Amino acid sequence: MASESGKLWGGRFVGTVDPIMEKFNSSIAYDRHLWEADVQGSKAYSRGLEKAGLLTKAEMDQILHGLDKVAEEWAQGTFKLNPNDEDIHTANERRLKELIGETAGKLHTGRSRNDQVVTDLRLWMRQNCSTLSALLCELIRTMVDRAEAERDVLFPGYTHLQRAQPIRWSHWILSHAVALTRDSERLLEVQKRINVLPLGSGAIAGNPLGVDRELLRAELDFGAITLNSMDATSERDFVAEFLFWASLCMTHLSRMAEDLILYGTKEFSFVQLSDAYSTGSSLMPQKKNPDSLELIRSKAGRVFGREDKEAVFEVSDTMSAVLQVATGVISTLQIHRENMGRALSPDMLATDLAYYLVRKGMPFRQAHEASGKAVFMAETKGVALNQLSLQELQTISPLFSGDVSHVWDYGHSVEQYQALGGTARSSVDWQIGQLRALLRAQQAESPPHPSPK
Amino acid sequence: MASESGKLWGGRFVGTVDPIMEKFNSSIAYDRHLWEADVQGSKAYSRGLEKAGLLTKAEMDQILHGLDKVAEEWAQGTFKLNPNDEDIHTANERRLKELIGETAGKLHTGRSRNDQVVTDLRLWMRQNCSTLSALLCELIRTMVDRAEAERDVLFPGYTHLQRAQPIRWSHWILSHAVALTRDSERLLEVQKRINVLPLGSGAIAGNPLGVDRELLRAELDFGAITLNSMDATSERDFVAEFLFWASLCMTHLSRMAEDLILYGTKEFSFVQLSDAYSTGSSLMPQKKNPDSLELIRSKAGRVFGREDKEAVFEVSDTMSAVLQVATGVISTLQIHRENMGRALSPDMLATDLAYYLVRKGMPFRQAHEASGKAVFMAETKGVALNQLSLQELQTISPLFSGDVSHVWDYGHSVEQYQALGGTARSSVDWQIGQLRALLRAQQAESPPHPSPK
Amino acid sequence: MASESGKLWGGRFVGTVDPIMEKFNSSIAYDRHLWEADVQGSKAYSRGLEKAGLLTKAEMDQILHGLDKVAEEWAQGTFKLNPNDEDIHTANERRLKELIGETAGKLHTGRSRNDQVVTDLRLWMRQNCSTLSALLCELIRTMVDRAEAERDVLFPGYTHLQRAQPIRWSHWILSHAVALTRDSERLLEVQKRINVLPLGSGAIAGNPLGVDRELLRAELDFGAITLNSMDATSERDFVAEFLFWASLCMTHLSRMAEDLILYGTKEFSFVQLSDAYSTGSSLMPQKKNPDSLELIRSKAGRVFGREDKEAVFEVSDTMSAVLQVATGVISTLQIHRENMGRALSPDMLATDLAYYLVRKGMPFRQAHEASGKAVFMAETKGVALNQLSLQELQTISPLFSGDVSHVWDYGHSVEQYQALGGTARSSVDWQIGQLRALLRAQQAESPPHPSPK
Amino acid sequence: MASESGKLWGGRFVGTVDPIMEKFNSSIAYDRHLWEADVQGSKAYSRGLEKAGLLTKAEMDQILHGLDKVAEEWAQGTFKLNPNDEDIHTANERRLKELIGETAGKLHTGRSRNDQVVTDLRLWMRQNCSTLSALLCELIRTMVDRAEAERDVLFPGYTHLQRAQPIRWSHWILSHAVALTRDSERLLEVQKRINVLPLGSGAIAGNPLGVDRELLRAELDFGAITLNSMDATSERDFVAEFLFWASLCMTHLSRMAEDLILYGTKEFSFVQLSDAYSTGSSLMPQKKNPDSLELIRSKAGRVFGREDKEAVFEVSDTMSAVLQVATGVISTLQIHRENMGRALSPDMLATDLAYYLVRKGMPFRQAHEASGKAVFMAETKGVALNQLSLQELQTISPLFSGDVSHVWDYGHSVEQYQALGGTARSSVDWQIGQLRALLRAQQAESPPHPSPK
Repeated sequence: MASESGKLWGGRFVGTVDPIMEKFNSSIAYDRHLWEADVQGSKAYSRGLEKAGLLTKAEMDQILHGLDKVAEEWAQGTFKLNPNDEDIHTANERRLKELIGETAGKLHTGRSRNDQVVTDLRLWMRQNCSTLSALLCELIRTMVDRAEAERDVLFPGYTHLQRAQPIRWSHWILSHAVALTRDSERLLEVQKRINVLPLGSGAIAGNPLGVDRELLRAELDFGAITLNSMDATSERDFVAEFLFWASLCMTHLSRMAEDLILYGTKEFSFVQLSDAYSTGSSLMPQKKNPDSLELIRSKAGRVFGREDKEAVFEVSDTMSAVLQVATGVISTLQIHRENMGRALSPDMLATDLAYYLVRKGMPFRQAHEASGKAVFMAETKGVALNQLSLQELQTISPLFSGDVSHVWDYGHSVEQYQALGGTARSSVDWQIGQLRALLRAQQAESPPHPSPK
Repeated sequence: MASESGKLWGGRFVGTVDPIMEKFNSSIAYDRHLWEADVQGSKAYSRGLEKAGLLTKAEMDQILHGLDKVAEEWAQGTFKLNPNDEDIHTANERRLKELIGETAGKLHTGRSRNDQVVTDLRLWMRQNCSTLSALLCELIRTMVDRAEAERDVLFPGYTHLQRAQPIRWSHWILSHAVALTRDSERLLEVQKRINVLPLGSGAIAGNPLGVDRELLRAELDFGAITLNSMDATSERDFVAEFLFWASLCMTHLSRMAEDLILYGTKEFSFVQLSDAYSTGSSLMPQKKNPDSLELIRSKAGRVFGREDKEAVFEVSDTMSAVLQVATGVISTLQIHRENMGRALSPDMLATDLAYYLVRKGMPFRQAHEASGKAVFMAETKGVALNQLSLQELQTISPLFSGDVSHVWDYGHSVEQYQALGGTARSSVDWQIGQLRALLRAQQAESPPHPSPK
Repeated sequence: MASESGKLWGGRFVGTVDPIMEKFNSSIAYDRHLWEADVQGSKAYSRGLEKAGLLTKAEMDQILHGLDKVAEEWAQGTFKLNPNDEDIHTANERRLKELIGETAGKLHTGRSRNDQVVTDLRLWMRQNCSTLSALLCELIRTMVDRAEAERDVLFPGYTHLQRAQPIRWSHWILSHAVALTRDSERLLEVQKRINVLPLGSGAIAGNPLGVDRELLRAELDFGAITLNSMDATSERDFVAEFLFWASLCMTHLSRMAEDLILYGTKEFSFVQLSDAYSTGSSLMPQKKNPDSLELIRSKAGRVFGREDKEAVFEVSDTMSAVLQVATGVISTLQIHRENMGRALSPDMLATDLAYYLVRKGMPFRQAHEASGKAVFMAETKGVALNQLSLQELQTISPLFSGDVSHVWDYGHSVEQYQALGGTARSSVDWQIGQLRALLRAQQAESPPHPSPK
Repeated sequence: MASESGKLWGGRFVGTVDPIMEKFNSSIAYDRHLWEADVQGSKAYSRGLEKAGLLTKAEMDQILHGLDKVAEEWAQGTFKLNPNDEDIHTANERRLKELIGETAGKLHTGRSRNDQVVTDLRLWMRQNCSTLSALLCELIRTMVDRAEAERDVLFPGYTHLQRAQPIRWSHWILSHAVALTRDSERLLEVQKRINVLPLGSGAIAGNPLGVDRELLRAELDFGAITLNSMDATSERDFVAEFLFWASLCMTHLSRMAEDLILYGTKEFSFVQLSDAYSTGSSLMPQKKNPDSLELIRSKAGRVFGREDKEAVFEVSDTMSAVLQVATGVISTLQIHRENMGRALSPDMLATDLAYYLVRKGMPFRQAHEASGKAVFMAETKGVALNQLSLQELQTISPLFSGDVSHVWDYGHSVEQYQALGGTARSSVDWQIGQLRALLRAQQAESPPHPSPK
């Protein structure tokens, strides 16, 4: 009789199960991550059952004690899985029964597997998101600190990988830090929607045995309870949201990594990765590869488009590693100020040359065209843009006069961009202040969910 | 000389452009949606230039008047595109110059195309999201109204497409409505992040000409300004967020459509679509296909995984149509109460039979097994579960007694699930109240962004 | 000195590596699948080195013997990984050195890690694809056998989940079998492109030491060698192709599963899954869920969109399990012929009614409309379509006469569709014959790549 | 009565259709591409009907003549769409009826919309794939020609964007050309599976009216007929295959574009795009952006993951443009040989230095480490690797002697890689020969499918 196999649905089956099918159906390989959440959820539920009169105080104590023992075995690595333990919930219940006997069978009263799976997953994700949130803030803080310390370093800003305008190195760092603060904000929103308790929803119809869901919520410190039992047990919006969050955050980290890989090439030579974040080649002795940065990029590819529960565990691990590696990279990165300075060239001031004419009253479109002609003239003559003589410039526009020489100062150039968000020192300081304030605000809002005890 | 071609970067090019390349690079086919936002943004920017002393009052008035004329031409369908108008921004600027002459060239002072594109896109999306938000609320309201009106209709709740437990028809409607309220909540968050002004960020370095970004923000009624000019011009997180929002919302609508398609088959016969949402077959005269529902499902497939700017326009149109069609479907759907009732069968009360034993003191796991044995016994004997005699039941457990007959009442069954979120009438009423309150709260929070004038 | 750490790039590094970075960079967790391929590739390469005079015969023998020992340890489960073994290639080389000393260092002469990784992956995939190909053929064969045995069973063909026309049960089976033969054909093409040897491409520039790539090809029984060393070491088209193949095959299996889930509902009751492929519910004692079919569908979701090397191992395992489960499901499925017959209804013959009129000379569009009117008339009167009297039909068209009664025979209906590919028995027999021939042809073409020795 | 509305399913509907629903359901906006294929398919089908005795010769001629007129109107741009023309098939049939009267209604006899849609799509794709195949071959040929002409130009080969080893410029070109020949091979396979005729499959059950599918096949010049009518009308494997083909091809073009963007930066300065494939900046007068290359990359993003019928038209257009632009870019690209040469540095010969020791008898792993020490020594001393004195090298290994100086010749370095696929001139010539032979073979195999007449 199949009921002796210990399967949860015991009484009815008369056939035997195809072993490939069994292995196929088993999720224990990845959902064992949930062991602690599972125990935590079951403890709360047994308290709910006791309040509802479905367990005596003594039975509840027996169950609580048994669950603590189960948790202890997991924590100490002594928990032994059976081949029949198809998921973490079955495994823990089977072990509880071995430890405390038939009373264990009361723990599942009115609670479905669906109920339990989704509650455990939310508990686990809630805690993990708290950790990721802290790691993300740590990365942003490192970036802001570095931006503050190196505000005076100028280098080329690029668009389309072509040198565009001189900017501050800090401006580049902050452009990435700002993107990450949006990730931090979004993570708070995801956490808010994770932090809703489904327990007490049964299979689909709810709980008919008087269990008080508000009590369960308080027990497990959730922010709210779910509204509809069918939706509660089947919806995984919070998983999709978390994976989307990870995708977007990885996009940002990947773009930063892409820039740094480029800045670290021999040809750019702006930055140098610490040896701790590089690896060599098994064939070419001179090679030092930016593997940390490439891994960030390739991990991004693996985060995109995942959409299953297994993905949550893997993506969460990946994010944790990536955020720490990125923090390490940024904090140990060496910059080559001289190379950065050398990479600035007068043609990057062509926009400023146009603005010079604008300030003399020429409409911008004409000024843009006049400056373009100057660039073309310089290229044709084979000289730098700032080496055109005043006479030469005046063949393009009579508005050029001696003060055009002030245009050719990179420091002056970046300092012009005083509008909020620009490259002027005052604006960079403002950005740093804004980010620091945001970090403080977000951390105040972030609910601490330490590991369950 | 290429400058005569009217290309914006005029002065420098000496080659000619591959015509395939030109067509390839052109975005006017889809970004013409932005005409109104583009005019709106340019009007605000010209006010900013005037405040900064870069336009005289007279020049500003000339530009504002010219832009109104451009808008009028678009509104009346008389705007004529040139083959050289590669995007909406070029087109509008070209037309402005034709209308008011060289002064038009001053409008772009210190403003880059990147600046302009992203500002226009945010303006357009802000307005469209307001519309979508209203349509979504309308759909939810329709569902809640229907749920309230049909609370007394019972039918089978399914898991794995197998009949599971009796539930209220309203409980099914509400399970989908609750999912949609999460979409509504998420849309508010996306709108908040769309509603941030990038204008004044230049190409990458910011604005060097004293334009006051706070003034621009107030002019265009944005909630905040972007923090970093490089990030502001390149980031499209809000596009990715919008598309993800649409994907998740479409997933919910698609699941609802999937259920309704099934409920509308001959075999289920629970509901019947209005003719207004069905179509026929060109070959088979008797066919009436649920095309509205199938289109919702197939459109879902096309929303997933889009990630470009073009997608925003298409996905936004799709969402608008889908939300209206879904509202129409729900409000005209006819239900077959008798078929719903007939589909309930005693084996769906097997869980209640187990609870009966639990209430008599049996641990749930044993009760589950006992009830499973009863199901097996009934199947073997070829009778319905409620037709087993008391003696037969007592061979399974001596705890069965005469009062077991009370288990076989579907109305009593759903009414048991009194825990919040369950199928009891009180719980369904509570859900309806919660959703109504949520709708009111979300609409209060939603910023009205009517079409720009 | 870092060289003592045993890292392959030994001599240069002076920093230490961030431990998170090390873990992050490690691939041993999944690429250990490659152990056998790695040994096989190294054995061939050592033969190549000997022929090129870079190893003496004695050194080669020493290496070959050492590699056999390494393989033996893996096969017996006694191979011990070191924490520093970052991938399978490093691990095997490290172990070889322990076994045979410094000579091991000669094995890597002129061979890069890239070279080795991609060669091993191709060897592994080649063998696995052979296995998958055989499993796929087994599934198709099972389906064709079943189709042949049950040719006389009729049931409704559906479009849009609405009953459309009567078809043979075999016709449904064959529609899925035909789709799977395309997968089988595509897999052969993928195998052809996997079966190309990259070894001898070095890091990017090729091999400068006189190793004969044609000899390596023959040694490892590849069909051809790669053309360009840069492309050879970096391209992973064959991985993308394999994953796409798996996606498409899973789409087909998933659609078949979807149909069977539906046919297995209480409402359809056409088929019943064997207990060996079903599971129960932990809460509801009466439930028997089609978990095998649902897993096939959910696994499909996890196969789509994967694009990394890790995916190859996981997807390959999934395909292997899914194909075997599908074969099991099909071969044990019980069908309910009577229910199938009962589900046929006269309105499904409305198309035949139109054809009746076509045969009497009416243009099809008018005949379609006339038949539609008959359906509407029957619905309005509340009778079945075949219960309309001749007089009633004649109010729609005078072409109706007494012989219209022949239309109402389901067996006659399916037998009409004699064009190749249709539902007539002759056509079904033709399909069976074609599929049997295709299976024979594909198996003849499939290269046997048994496990390397 | 709805039948007067001209809808194809005429006779039955009594409600009216929600106008949003109608628009939603309409596909005419994109499937008008199919007008020519639709006429072509209908002409063949009318011939089939005549052979089967369902049309008289006179009726057939009338239909053929009418269809020619429809085609003429499309070709001349005079075809007028009605608001009720929901797709191209309805539109053409409606117009045919206007032109020739009721006989038009006979054309659809036994042919379903599904039948017609999938036949038309295959006809259209067959022709388009022929065009794409030719464009792809043209691009490959351009690359091979260029590779042949510039075989003597050396420049750095990169891995991980770090300079790795000296290679020939031609070797880089050929690495991309080889990847494209795989795309060309795959396209042939896709074409083979597109070239299978579904016509004659009806809605799902096949054709009951004696239409000879073999005759239809010959009429439309297809390679084979589909095997099962249900599969034939619903399967879109060939669409998925085409889109996958496009994704992979775009990946290759995108990688080439990525390299060229990098090689065209100021920092690399290896190549310069023709003005015909560049654009400027609206703000920065000095900018010249590699927009053609960036568009190739961004179009790649838009090709990935599309999976609907609309995508076929868009992706096909994109591929056509991209292949032509890529051909233009490659054929007009200017290379800077001197910069390429200057970018070679002695540390890139570190692998050759290791091979020097290998040739003296040192195991490769030790040689790699010794060479790594030399690199480290040179870096520490601040000299180039080739400036270490013999004495200094001998402190690392006594195997170094005077002939080490031969290592420092880049031309000699690339010439060493004589194994097939490597950088030696003979190997590059072999690659060129292989590619030329492949192109010839693939073009011989490619079925010409000129535009239908």
